[in-house]
This record gives sequence, structure tokens and C-alpha cells, in this order.
Amino acid sequence: MKTILTRRTIRKYSTQDVEPALLDRLLTEAARTQTMGNLQLYSVVVTRSAEGKVALAPAHFNQPMVTQAPVVLTVCADFRRTTTWAECRQATPGYDNLLSFMNAATDALLFTQTFCNLAEEEGLGLCYLGTTLYMPQAIIEVLQLPQLVFPVATLTVGWPAEEPALTDRLPLESFVHSEHYHDPTAADIDRFYAVKEALPENQEFVRINQKETLAQVFTDIRYTKKDNELMSQGFWKALRKQGFTTNG
Amino acid sequence: MKTILTRRTIRKYSTQDVEPALLDRLLTEAARTQTMGNLQLYSVVVTRSAEGKVALAPAHFNQPMVTQAPVVLTVCADFRRTTTWAECRQATPGYDNLLSFMNAATDALLFTQTFCNLAEEEGLGLCYLGTTLYMPQAIIEVLQLPQLVFPVATLTVGWPAEEPALTDRLPLESFVHSEHYHDPTAADIDRFYAVKEALPENQEFVRINQKETLAQVFTDIRYTKKDNELMSQGFWKALRKQGFTTNG
Repeated sequence: MKTILTRRTIRKYSTQDVEPALLDRLLTEAARTQTMGNLQLYSVVVTRSAEGKVALAPAHFNQPMVTQAPVVLTVCADFRRTTTWAECRQATPGYDNLLSFMNAATDALLFTQTFCNLAEEEGLGLCYLGTTLYMPQAIIEVLQLPQLVFPVATLTVGWPAEEPALTDRLPLESFVHSEHYHDPTAADIDRFYAVKEALPENQEFVRINQKETLAQVFTDIRYTKKDNELMSQGFWKALRKQGFTTNG
Repeated sequence: MKTILTRRTIRKYSTQDVEPALLDRLLTEAARTQTMGNLQLYSVVVTRSAEGKVALAPAHFNQPMVTQAPVVLTVCADFRRTTTWAECRQATPGYDNLLSFMNAATDALLFTQTFCNLAEEEGLGLCYLGTTLYMPQAIIEVLQLPQLVFPVATLTVGWPAEEPALTDRLPLESFVHSEHYHDPTAADIDRFYAVKEALPENQEFVRINQKETLAQVFTDIRYTKKDNELMSQGFWKALRKQGFTTNG
């Protein structure tokens, strides 16, 4: 995994296709990832058609990668297949609850990340769309996801047509704790965020948004309390509708 | 990532330590993983002390890896550090809701899986403990996790002292769908699960558990409706207690 230190999110892709055989190989290899009880509680919907991408785009705030990438992958937490298997085998499934959703979401996200690591090693460019959790109901409808299937990750995949700068990361001490959690003090925060806050692009970001601090750009513009609370309601509703809170 | 095709979960470790410098390097590299708004919504608690491992073990049903591995990592969804940063910077955070929990859990799980892939490439052996989600409150107490921090993954880490057989996986067609979800029919299920159900170890598993089908081993013994519903309640309660459902 030599590429991990130089990886960046890729939002612009060449016109070259991602060969189905290559994609299948990467998905097969990613499935070697550990999974709960070896049940593989995930599924992947591959969108290659122009109509399919256009239909998905609004759920991702019409970010241009969705329609421009050769391939869009929607990875879902999936207890449906396992439940159907049980029903076909005189067994009584009990996976219509929040714990089971979290187990399946975990399986799906671990699988997704191995796929990302493998695809980036192969030279492919990826953009991970966090918007998947914002309007899940729209994605559920477009992809016709049945009960006990829930979208948790979307990747746009293609061959890179850009090479953006590497982004910064917080120092290790800000996120690694020895033996127990050490709650950061104001002085810790100053130290952890000093480099990030001093970056010219972040200072510019504060200026053009007419804010006092970088944190305000996040709380007032990018991820606001109001938006989070509104989207939480949609998330709850979709979770209920997909049957993941029926019993517990 | 040559090791992906031969990776197996490792539950027995040699007495050799995992050098702190090596662990720090792998955690630093794993942090190159994409993260929401580059906020890095995770933290890792590293348990190396014997007392710490003994304290964590009951939360993981006393699986022996927890006390035998040189290192136990608990990866947490963490909106605490970001919230404290905002509060120190005249910004109003709004991350005490389910959507924010899911965003942070996603960040934490993607980071965890890149760490797994890097550590396995390095020759380390890992066991991913799904039990983390079963009794989160016990882990929260042992690791002194404050509000807006929630454990989502545990890894036991060491140098392998065993080489178990590779486990089976379902065929690609069982979990990859083209353009939209294709709900499996009974005939599909037969085809998808044929190899798994025919494996001698799985047939033995059915026999010793005195069940009729492999699916019944899962629904009646390993992951029962009753246990799932009970643990869902504990999960809900811990999520509320950590402040992740206060507003939405």
C-alpha cells in the first residue's frame, strides 16, 4: 500500500472506462475483508448508465462527479439476503433492529474501505460521497432497495484527470489516547489545530465566508446544527421505513 | 496489497511486542483515509497494560485475545474534539444527533479498515471484535469516554502465532447488483449458499449444534432475535447517554 501516503480524493476523471473485469476483481478481493460471522452483510449497486447517474445525482446535491464518473458504487448495509436465506431454510431471523443495522453498516463500511485501498493501489481515482447519509430515502427509491437494505456509502470511480494537493491531517496525539480517553483542554486544542488554522487556504476560506474562525465555517456553513437535525429526522424515518427499528 | 487474498483473522499471538514506533507509524498512515470535511471524527484508545485488558475483557465476552494480545485498539466515533474546538473558537456546534453519530462512526470505521490493511501488509495479525457494539456502555466506562465519543470497533493486534485456514466467501453475484437491487429468489439463494452449506466444517457445525440447517445455527445460536433485541436496547441507551440523540 505504497499509495496511502499520497492518496487524494479525485473528483475529475478521464473519459476512459473502468473495465467491468477490473471492477469485478477489485470487488471480489475487497470481499476478503473480515465480516460478522462471515455473513457478508453488504451489497453493492453498480451504476454505469447515464439515466441511473442522473437519477442518483439529486440525492448527492448534484455534485458533478456523480454524472461524470464512469462508475458510481452505492454500498449498502444488507440484512435482506441473510434474512431471505434464513426464511428459505426453516430458520427464524431477527435482524429488524438497530443493532443489526449497525452490524451490517459496519460490514459495509469495512468492505468499502478495502475496496478504496485496492482501487487506489490500482491507480483509480475515487471520491467518497458522505451525502449518502443525508438523503437516504431518495437513494433507496432510485436503487429500489427493499426492506433491511440501507445505503451507507457512495463512491464515484474513474481514472484520475487531476492531481490535487494533499490535504492536512491533525497530529497523532490529537486522536490517539493511551489507556483511557484524555479530554482535550483549550491549550490542547490550540496545539492540535495550529497547523490547520494557519494554512493559507483555510485562512482564505475564513475570509471569503466572512467568518472569524475556521471552526465557524464548519458550524455556520458546512455542517450546521439546523441541517444536521433536519437530516437526522430523514435518517430516522428511512431507517424505520427499511424495517431496521421494527423490533429494538 | 498482496496480502488481501491470503488474509485471515489471527487470534493467537507470539510474545513479541508491537513496537510503539511501528504502531504510531501505522496509525499516522491510516489517517490519510478520506474523512468528512477533513475533520477526522474518530479517536483510538490504545490499551497495553494488563489491568486495562482485564478491565475490557468482560465487554468482549472474555474472548481470550483481549488479554493475550500485546495491544488492544478501541476505535471511537468522536465528535467531542471537534465540538470542543468549536466551543474554543466562538462557534456553535450541533453534533448531538443521530446523523452526526453516523458521520463519525463512518469516519472511524473507514480509518479502522485502512489500519487493518496496513497492519496486515506489515505482517501483523488482527482480530476484529464485533462485540464492541454489544455492550458499549461497559467499554465507555472502562475507557472513560466522554459525551459525543462512542466505541465502534476493537482490534486485538500482535504478531501471528497461528495460520488458520482461509474462510469461504459468497460468489460476487450474490452481493453485486447492476443498476438497481435484484431481490434474491429461492433459486438464487440455493445457488449463492451452495458452496458454503456444502463445506464439511459447516456441515459439522450443523450436526454438533443439533440443527437442521446452517442458517438455524446463526438464527438460533449465534445471532438470535432475542439477543439482538436485548443488545439493541443497550445500544440505544448508550447512544442517548453519550449525547448522540439529544437533538435529532
